[in-house]
Amino acid sequence: MFQMHPIGFVRSPYTETAQIPKGKGAEHRAEGVLDVLPEYEQGLMDIEGFSHLYVLWVFDRAGGAELIAYPPSDNKPHGVFATRSPQRPNPVGLTVVELLRREGTKLHVRGVDMLDATPILDIKPYLSSVPDADLRRGWLTSLENGPSPAR
Amino acid sequence: MFQMHPIGFVRSPYTETAQIPKGKGAEHRAEGVLDVLPEYEQGLMDIEGFSHLYVLWVFDRAGGAELIAYPPSDNKPHGVFATRSPQRPNPVGLTVVELLRREGTKLHVRGVDMLDATPILDIKPYLSSVPDADLRRGWLTSLENGPSPAR
Repeated sequence: MFQMHPIGFVRSPYTETAQIPKGKGAEHRAEGVLDVLPEYEQGLMDIEGFSHLYVLWVFDRAGGAELIAYPPSDNKPHGVFATRSPQRPNPVGLTVVELLRREGTKLHVRGVDMLDATPILDIKPYLSSVPDADLRRGWLTSLENGPSPAR
Repeated sequence: MFQMHPIGFVRSPYTETAQIPKGKGAEHRAEGVLDVLPEYEQGLMDIEGFSHLYVLWVFDRAGGAELIAYPPSDNKPHGVFATRSPQRPNPVGLTVVELLRREGTKLHVRGVDMLDATPILDIKPYLSSVPDADLRRGWLTSLENGPSPAR
């Protein structure tokens, strides 16, 4: 077992899960703040040079883990590791945000999809991307190509 | 505090930190296996449709946390959250791997940069990238543009 502790908390416009855009075509443009605890301020040195950050956080209000998930974009079951379901064996979320500006221990960001007061475990620089041409997106692909024809 | 537990372990060619390519221009082409524990097999359903995966894992052999890191590519100090240093307040690593094939609970992947037997906390589908044109990479940029002229 490994013990993790918050290094800060997310300030988000979302206070209930139902408010967070989900599923096919959901866009995360909401602005929020990564409010880092004062004792970690030194760890933010030079972070303002990065345009995008990874945020690792805890689904602290999700129910227990399920190995099968039913994503909102789909009514079909998928293994939890092939989805972003909150009900994971380790309830850790991962979000890429755009860093707009830093004010001391407050990182103003765009692209939050967490609830307000979500505990943050880690922040990392986003360094490189997989080219779109190399990406296959599994069960999501058929959804993006429109509904299957009725049979 | 949050308790996390392994859902599996990485099989990697690297048994010592010194063997892992690091710093400027490091390429992670090494093949390895995400060896998921049998009790989580159902959670892998449909994962083979994705070309790339996020792996969240534990730096289980790193020393204690430091807020200032000295990356190998640089001899300058940076805040730990602006680096990928293992010595983080929560020692969680994040790696994007290419999924080559699945054999039951074994995911054969390319791009491991973890030590052999590293505990895995979570696996998530890699769904989209930030376009390269939109990325700023902070202190790394000046390194990529070559060494600063001597003064």
